[in-house]
Amino acid sequence: MSLDDPVSVANEALAIANQNKFMINNLWILIATALVFVMHLGFAALESGFVQRKNVVNILFKNVMIICIGLLSYYIIGFNLMYPGSNAGGYFVFPEFLVSANSEDLTTAYGNYTIWTDFIFQGMFAATCCTIVSGAVAERIKLMPFILFCCLFVSISYPITGFWKWGAGWLDARGFYDFAGSTLVHSVGGWGALAGIILLGPRKGKFTTAGIKPIPGHSMPLAAVGVFLLWFGWFGFNGGSVLSADPGLVSKVFVTTSLAAAAGGLGAILISILIYKSFDLSMALNGILGGLVGITASADSVSAISSIMIGLIAGLIIPLSISAFDKMKLDDPVGATSVHLVCGIWGTIAVAIFGEYDKGIGEWSDQLIGIAAVGLFTFSFAFIIFYLLKLSMGIRVSEQEERKGLDIEEHNFIAYS
Amino acid sequence: MSLDDPVSVANEALAIANQNKFMINNLWILIATALVFVMHLGFAALESGFVQRKNVVNILFKNVMIICIGLLSYYIIGFNLMYPGSNAGGYFVFPEFLVSANSEDLTTAYGNYTIWTDFIFQGMFAATCCTIVSGAVAERIKLMPFILFCCLFVSISYPITGFWKWGAGWLDARGFYDFAGSTLVHSVGGWGALAGIILLGPRKGKFTTAGIKPIPGHSMPLAAVGVFLLWFGWFGFNGGSVLSADPGLVSKVFVTTSLAAAAGGLGAILISILIYKSFDLSMALNGILGGLVGITASADSVSAISSIMIGLIAGLIIPLSISAFDKMKLDDPVGATSVHLVCGIWGTIAVAIFGEYDKGIGEWSDQLIGIAAVGLFTFSFAFIIFYLLKLSMGIRVSEQEERKGLDIEEHNFIAYS
Amino acid sequence: MSLDDPVSVANEALAIANQNKFMINNLWILIATALVFVMHLGFAALESGFVQRKNVVNILFKNVMIICIGLLSYYIIGFNLMYPGSNAGGYFVFPEFLVSANSEDLTTAYGNYTIWTDFIFQGMFAATCCTIVSGAVAERIKLMPFILFCCLFVSISYPITGFWKWGAGWLDARGFYDFAGSTLVHSVGGWGALAGIILLGPRKGKFTTAGIKPIPGHSMPLAAVGVFLLWFGWFGFNGGSVLSADPGLVSKVFVTTSLAAAAGGLGAILISILIYKSFDLSMALNGILGGLVGITASADSVSAISSIMIGLIAGLIIPLSISAFDKMKLDDPVGATSVHLVCGIWGTIAVAIFGEYDKGIGEWSDQLIGIAAVGLFTFSFAFIIFYLLKLSMGIRVSEQEERKGLDIEEHNFIAYS
Repeated sequence: MSLDDPVSVANEALAIANQNKFMINNLWILIATALVFVMHLGFAALESGFVQRKNVVNILFKNVMIICIGLLSYYIIGFNLMYPGSNAGGYFVFPEFLVSANSEDLTTAYGNYTIWTDFIFQGMFAATCCTIVSGAVAERIKLMPFILFCCLFVSISYPITGFWKWGAGWLDARGFYDFAGSTLVHSVGGWGALAGIILLGPRKGKFTTAGIKPIPGHSMPLAAVGVFLLWFGWFGFNGGSVLSADPGLVSKVFVTTSLAAAAGGLGAILISILIYKSFDLSMALNGILGGLVGITASADSVSAISSIMIGLIAGLIIPLSISAFDKMKLDDPVGATSVHLVCGIWGTIAVAIFGEYDKGIGEWSDQLIGIAAVGLFTFSFAFIIFYLLKLSMGIRVSEQEERKGLDIEEHNFIAYS
Repeated sequence: MSLDDPVSVANEALAIANQNKFMINNLWILIATALVFVMHLGFAALESGFVQRKNVVNILFKNVMIICIGLLSYYIIGFNLMYPGSNAGGYFVFPEFLVSANSEDLTTAYGNYTIWTDFIFQGMFAATCCTIVSGAVAERIKLMPFILFCCLFVSISYPITGFWKWGAGWLDARGFYDFAGSTLVHSVGGWGALAGIILLGPRKGKFTTAGIKPIPGHSMPLAAVGVFLLWFGWFGFNGGSVLSADPGLVSKVFVTTSLAAAAGGLGAILISILIYKSFDLSMALNGILGGLVGITASADSVSAISSIMIGLIAGLIIPLSISAFDKMKLDDPVGATSVHLVCGIWGTIAVAIFGEYDKGIGEWSDQLIGIAAVGLFTFSFAFIIFYLLKLSMGIRVSEQEERKGLDIEEHNFIAYS
Repeated sequence: MSLDDPVSVANEALAIANQNKFMINNLWILIATALVFVMHLGFAALESGFVQRKNVVNILFKNVMIICIGLLSYYIIGFNLMYPGSNAGGYFVFPEFLVSANSEDLTTAYGNYTIWTDFIFQGMFAATCCTIVSGAVAERIKLMPFILFCCLFVSISYPITGFWKWGAGWLDARGFYDFAGSTLVHSVGGWGALAGIILLGPRKGKFTTAGIKPIPGHSMPLAAVGVFLLWFGWFGFNGGSVLSADPGLVSKVFVTTSLAAAAGGLGAILISILIYKSFDLSMALNGILGGLVGITASADSVSAISSIMIGLIAGLIIPLSISAFDKMKLDDPVGATSVHLVCGIWGTIAVAIFGEYDKGIGEWSDQLIGIAAVGLFTFSFAFIIFYLLKLSMGIRVSEQEERKGLDIEEHNFIAYS
């Protein structure tokens, strides 16, 4: 090519520039995928830190199973169910494109990334909805029915409601807005958790005639490490949900996500000091998570000040919500319903209050309908599945097993020798 | 656009190419931000591993608070104080731009990244200076005065000295060089730590009439995990300080940072074997950190061989420094003053010895003036604040509380059930 | 530049576009480097979780030493030995380019990344081969001979076999295919481990007249955290081995790597349930690792379905292999030989079964010759070194030391106070 030929130089430059843009966007979503994967480690650490020493192997085993089964079942059915548009076959068609080894065909499937990238990013998301449930039902659920529940939840329930919004379904058309999943991921997990703990009942010894007895977790360092890792992973969860490496949006999402997390931690600590007169580490940890869940629906479209307000309110909600669930005798060892369900709802409402959108997007009515529709569907689905499992094979371990611990009884193993 | 129109093709190609460059640079600083965030987890793990079992909840709580308060106070005051140039209002003006939700206005604010990116990267840096202090004063400081100290330290002291160099202040004009903060971050944290441990006094039982009694940390795995995570985070701390994704500079920084860390670990081990006749894990861990702190001032401008020398010397310093502080009866449970203050000073001097700069940059006199000026200001600031807190509300827990542990007395909680 | 001058606009656009491409590719390999670094943390956590409480400091110390010595010795000799082509001097020439501080000369050395990037990415890889050995020989090997072994293994043995393929040596010319190192990294580590455990003999009390006695690890959370971190790091290990940020290839590698890991976990669990009638967490964890090792040779060139098959078979192999090694009275506390050697061989064979290559690449004969040649060389090298160390200074600790634990005897320290 010579300098006399500006046309071919210009065309070559344009082609490389367009390839580069695709390369950057795609790379960021892959890095975000790895960060969302870290959230599974974060949940595993958090949940095992918050359970008793005798149930640690069991909760770790569940978290290991969930990521394995979650990815495989999302590959086999979930992805296609959630994004039928990306596959000519529509619903329930086996995703043929993933059978192909020819990656070249797949590099231009979407605007900003390859279809491989799309699948693995969404797959990591999907599997998180079950990890939310696993914490809430810990220390008393049987392993096999829980695994069956996860298979159905991640491959059918989650993709259906996900499709309503992110698959360009009816909620999307209606103007419902949920940036990275306060409702579609977190409250979905929370509704599943709620159904589970209602049908399971509380752990023995939690609600006694002498009052509510706290059952402290066995390792605070493990729980704290888990929360830091979840925050780290959230940079990918929210930052990757921009679905490109757009500089303004991704950097804004990093700021709003971090400020909301910080404000959430602070809010929970303030309430702990004011009401409970204590510096409560587990409240601070759950406050951070509440702030993160709260900002997830609107991280791309609120100001920094608004993100602090959203996080702060989420942090204030956490201790009150945990206390309220306790009063209703709904036993949740890790506070997952408060963090993911209550703050997920709060975050979705916050879109209507703080979000800056065009008219007809994210308004009060849209958001409330979305919360209600997803909640109704998910809670019903989870309740029915858990109920059928309860009737057929039972979902709760025996009293003796609960007393001795699930590690010895289900796994014949102990966490610490 | 047609092939007949090379002008518009060329202009479009140029526009996309320039946008791409901005996108890559911005993305790397955001990823580096996430890595610097991981350092907060690293510090939390390291410090809780190195303290006694009875003080674990307390140190975790502090580290959780620091990241929350650090980010929020840096947003409210610190960022603007440190980089007044980026805001028309000058000093002490509320950073209006962060109130805006309109990210588009903010995408072209700086050359290589958005102003959102700048804020969150700098905010993560700022909060680390308090985590350095928290380790040194652990196991005996009261929680409330420590939190008050952190607020002032991170939002006033750190930004003022940071402004002197990175905000294009007088030290910068003078030729002082500190690439990523051996002085501006690490020795600043170290001076704060030194002021704290002088005013607090040593833990009971550390310096007895029978000699110096080591008080071993409660979990070596936690401490080791912390150091590995800090090394991981340092790729962002130093690599992100290039402030672009420049291939030559970022890759060089990765090499010098890693080789210095490795040489630091080796140096500390060699001294341990030669002098103390033992394979001392905690020395090896602090040696790695010393190497990392040491290379931080010059990671972009020394050869690989020089980076090994810098790290090795830092590693040799660590055991000698820890021993010297012990002899001065200055009690530092995690060795933070040796790692961050002493190796921070060493790293800043190393710029003059090994750095390859233009004339007038990073020379001996410049570096010594920088070390002295930042040290004098920071130590005085920290000493006065701690002293006023000591006079007013007291900074040290009661003897009984120290004996029983801060977890039970301040938090009414234990780390492991 | 004016709009009238399309030539210079076009040329500038082309220049920036080409620089951007270089910048993206280089950045991804650096990020992958940081992820591979995390694998060292993963191994440290996994191995310390799987050993007894009395040997934790020792295994952590080894893992800290390995990364330090590994990087330094790879800098001094290994890199140059493995990639002589990148240095005019050929074999055994000190890598002069790394002495230079002038990064600008080094930014265009290779097509996709700088020579600094190449060195640090390869250096992180190299050091992993020793961490594989450290787990297998844990709880009974002396520290000094192990460190000497590591120096020789990482700086001579690993680079020589690496050169055969990745340095464009004879195995490469022959058509042998090993994408990211099922053979060149993992089975190399596995062969070294096998030589070590043969010469060391089993731990006291493992194989008794009353049968095989399991010696459970001291912390399952630590082991589980390690496996999650290894999976996280594998995104860099395999994803970075694309050696560019090519969107199709990197995203495909993320998918095949994740699906194989998930299938590996599932496969190991299925066998555990069917044969051993238990939900065995450590099998699940090793199954995931087996799947990851298995896919490493072909992650860039198999379909998603094939990656599931490869992982599943690796997962099925794990429990059978662990059981087989036990029957041969070869004692491997962490299962490293099953994971890295057996699944490394399996993954290399899987290339011939599932890989989609041009004719003459990765065929059965090529793969078997590669496995055999690398195995023969590495096992011989490791056996001879360990044997000479055994003759000269002894490689096994005394019976008393083994009983009391290496932490007290070698380090005069305990992991948990």
